[in-house]
Amino acid sequence: MSFTEFPSRLLEEAVNEFASLPGIGRKTAFRLVMNLLRRDPEEVKRFGESITRLHDEIHYCKICNNISDTDICNICGDERRDRSLVCVVENIQDVMAIENTRQFKGLYHVLGGIISPIDGVGPSDLNIDSLEDKVKSGSINEIILALSTTMEGDTTNYYLFRRLHNYNINITTLARGVAIGDELEYTDEITLGRAINNRNPYKQ
Amino acid sequence: MSFTEFPSRLLEEAVNEFASLPGIGRKTAFRLVMNLLRRDPEEVKRFGESITRLHDEIHYCKICNNISDTDICNICGDERRDRSLVCVVENIQDVMAIENTRQFKGLYHVLGGIISPIDGVGPSDLNIDSLEDKVKSGSINEIILALSTTMEGDTTNYYLFRRLHNYNINITTLARGVAIGDELEYTDEITLGRAINNRNPYKQ
Repeated sequence: MSFTEFPSRLLEEAVNEFASLPGIGRKTAFRLVMNLLRRDPEEVKRFGESITRLHDEIHYCKICNNISDTDICNICGDERRDRSLVCVVENIQDVMAIENTRQFKGLYHVLGGIISPIDGVGPSDLNIDSLEDKVKSGSINEIILALSTTMEGDTTNYYLFRRLHNYNINITTLARGVAIGDELEYTDEITLGRAINNRNPYKQ
Repeated sequence: MSFTEFPSRLLEEAVNEFASLPGIGRKTAFRLVMNLLRRDPEEVKRFGESITRLHDEIHYCKICNNISDTDICNICGDERRDRSLVCVVENIQDVMAIENTRQFKGLYHVLGGIISPIDGVGPSDLNIDSLEDKVKSGSINEIILALSTTMEGDTTNYYLFRRLHNYNINITTLARGVAIGDELEYTDEITLGRAINNRNPYKQ
């Protein structure tokens, strides 16, 4: 089924909007819109409003740039968290992934991307100045660089290290090694090589 | 990444709404919402409104039940189409599929589904009474039953035939056979068997 002619302009517009989402083709978009049409009006209204409100009412935390319903996110507003420890991540998905481990009790700093010359993203496009300001203020003991283990991630790590290493703080990165549950024969050779070089004392 | 905790209720609501669509899991829903968040506010507003308006403003054609921006759809409103020939289809996707062939010059009648006892859909849930009324009115010469070649489609065809065959009309169905471009060795045996039994004179 191709879509040369729609019986309704409203339908066509809704299909076009859905088809503009990443990974959603026109056939899928059509299927989704048809699903919405079969629902109760109230439900569809709620769907549409959740999108409109998302953009109108969402906040970005003034401290860490994490997404939030308020000016300061729940994490930065939590008095029990260690304010001297800041984990630098690329985006809010990474905040959520680390939060889900329940292992980290410091704060975050969301860069909003990583340095990627190919995509035209330079240091000035990221929230790096505000990170340096935080470090300058003297309240931070340790910065954890928790970026992707890609070329761009490594570049960004290096750039951040160069900008921050003269301040009196520890700069650390996530441990690299063989993932829990991974079989050695399927582990890529760079990871395995580094894991051998950075081996740890065996703990019972 | 699981989603035990969202940093924002608004974000969570939008993700839940997208995840309620068929074939969209929570990870995909999250990815789609993050894509919307990165867009211009105007664009996102338009997206939300296209959904809200779709439900508020869409019409179903009073004659054929096709989706439409007005009370009577473009097809039923087109004076050049043959009003004595009515093609009965399950849903508006089927109308669009047949329209795209540009081979049909009659009108449609959208049933809004097919008889399916397993899904709890009986004849009274479909637009069958209005079809019978049209036939009763005497303006129709031929009804084409263009339903799926499934058990449910066959059941519905049979039911419609039983209800309409006493009126003075022709009742026809779509030609069944080997699809254009299909290779015989991959054609299922029922289709191939019927295609042999219903063979046509060769035309040069």
